[in-house]
Amino acid sequence: MKKIIFDTDPGIDDAMALLLAHACQDIEVVGITTTFGNASIENTTRNALYLKQKFGMHAEVAKGVNTPLDQVKTEPATLVHGDNGLGNIELPDQINTPLSPLIAHDYIVETLKKQPGEITLVAVGRLTNLALAIEKAPEIGKLVKEVIIMGGAFGHNGHTGNLTPFAEANVYGDPLAADIVINADWPVTIVGLDVTQQTQMSNAYLEKVRTHSEKYGQFIYDITRFYAKFYNDDLGLDGFYVHDSSAIMYLVSPEIFTTKQGHIRVITEGPAKGHTLFKGSNRVFPIDEWATAPKQTIAINVEPQTFNQRYFDIICGN
Amino acid sequence: MKKIIFDTDPGIDDAMALLLAHACQDIEVVGITTTFGNASIENTTRNALYLKQKFGMHAEVAKGVNTPLDQVKTEPATLVHGDNGLGNIELPDQINTPLSPLIAHDYIVETLKKQPGEITLVAVGRLTNLALAIEKAPEIGKLVKEVIIMGGAFGHNGHTGNLTPFAEANVYGDPLAADIVINADWPVTIVGLDVTQQTQMSNAYLEKVRTHSEKYGQFIYDITRFYAKFYNDDLGLDGFYVHDSSAIMYLVSPEIFTTKQGHIRVITEGPAKGHTLFKGSNRVFPIDEWATAPKQTIAINVEPQTFNQRYFDIICGN
Ligand SMILES: [Ca+2]
Ligand SMILES: [Ca+2]
Repeated sequence: MKKIIFDTDPGIDDAMALLLAHACQDIEVVGITTTFGNASIENTTRNALYLKQKFGMHAEVAKGVNTPLDQVKTEPATLVHGDNGLGNIELPDQINTPLSPLIAHDYIVETLKKQPGEITLVAVGRLTNLALAIEKAPEIGKLVKEVIIMGGAFGHNGHTGNLTPFAEANVYGDPLAADIVINADWPVTIVGLDVTQQTQMSNAYLEKVRTHSEKYGQFIYDITRFYAKFYNDDLGLDGFYVHDSSAIMYLVSPEIFTTKQGHIRVITEGPAKGHTLFKGSNRVFPIDEWATAPKQTIAINVEPQTFNQRYFDIICGN
Repeated sequence: MKKIIFDTDPGIDDAMALLLAHACQDIEVVGITTTFGNASIENTTRNALYLKQKFGMHAEVAKGVNTPLDQVKTEPATLVHGDNGLGNIELPDQINTPLSPLIAHDYIVETLKKQPGEITLVAVGRLTNLALAIEKAPEIGKLVKEVIIMGGAFGHNGHTGNLTPFAEANVYGDPLAADIVINADWPVTIVGLDVTQQTQMSNAYLEKVRTHSEKYGQFIYDITRFYAKFYNDDLGLDGFYVHDSSAIMYLVSPEIFTTKQGHIRVITEGPAKGHTLFKGSNRVFPIDEWATAPKQTIAINVEPQTFNQRYFDIICGN
């Protein structure tokens, strides 16, 4: 059983990724920690509780902080995810599911301490909660099984950014946190735009999911109407790229990804704020702030057909 | 006749580039403005005056300032160019060639005003002088014919830096100046490491230059012994990459270069200080500090055999 804490800002693709994890028989979602980005922390936390209740999840939900480490607030991505963060589907007025008494980063620290070596952190939003956790309790670096991140863009296949020409939205939203998390003493794998923009779910595919998954199909179809319209208006796509589910898919089927290892730094300010730079070579330079960074892993390619087939099979219970 | 002001920090490859310009019948070197980097401003200016005297150049020599715009001083590159900046060849104690009474950036402004539309600025060092000139007198943007820069690295052919993993030395040495010069209202072409590291002059080639050019051969051979040893020790090369001469060659034979146009920004601080980022696409992003930058030109490929043949022919008077 692969136990995870899912750090997330649901978010349409966050919800799709969470449902993938929940539907997957090999994964146990132990906890859900919320972050801000696709919507305010109030809305992403409400959405996490709603998803837990609607789909009968056992995961504890812990609410995160509402500002990035550099205190530079950015607007929630309502143009992409709708005002409520779930594509403006109708949501119940009240959700009767309790929150964890712990704030997200404390929840992460406590849970890793209780289950040493058992838990993978899968983070698909800004990395604020993970940064606060590892800064407060560096010893969790040895307790976590693995850290898998959806974020960043390393230029493979021409993918260098989505929020800016050279920054992916999760990293841009808290670049200091990203630099801390990526350069902490724990094993990190990053699935960035290099890979997430290789997989596309078309409207026909989503229609098929709707008719083949009794439990999740209609819901996934409903929340993705807004998202697909955004991608169509903005980039002329039929359907959308598959961002957050790529991090869960890496946990499920790492063999369909190509990866490489190297040293990574994040640009934290200026026009390229949020830019992620990967040094894969061992060449020695007179000045080199990568040389002392730990070696981490980035994904650079994926098999998109296998990806979509596997997502379909898991969500549809095949 | 292509008239130029050559902005330079001689510097071994600077000297080779200056000799190429001087030897080329289509180029008139009107002025030489000095900058610091390969050596101190005192040494680069002394070297410029020495080259002028030794090879009978008519160019006026104007001395530049000795600090980058951000006031962050870095060590001169004596490991690459020798303590005297010319590979530690013996230099005369005294050089009886007068300096311009104008400081470099004022010399640039005055000369462009006197010869509107006539002069190309070719800059092969840090861009401090050009930045001070265009900031003091923005009207020279309309008076210059063209600006050709050796600097930066845009990732083509895997070339992203030489001083750091993601910065070329000239841009790293004054990144604020580079961002100002590249984004000023004048036409800029940048020949970065993408191209300069495609051309290599072997020791056998330099031996041939020595025996075939009566005027320049022995001198080029002598100054490059130190430089070739550095490249051999550091990167295992036979000979060296051809940096500064690439900017003069672009003026002589632009047809052997492939170029593209786009918007460029320079990272001015942090681990990626001096990194140059080129946006070639017209994709619209929610946040985009490239969108308002002027379109400039970068070289991305060169024909190295033709390059070396042409350098040989010009230097040897063929
Ligand atoms: Ca997300
Ligand atoms: Ca130079």
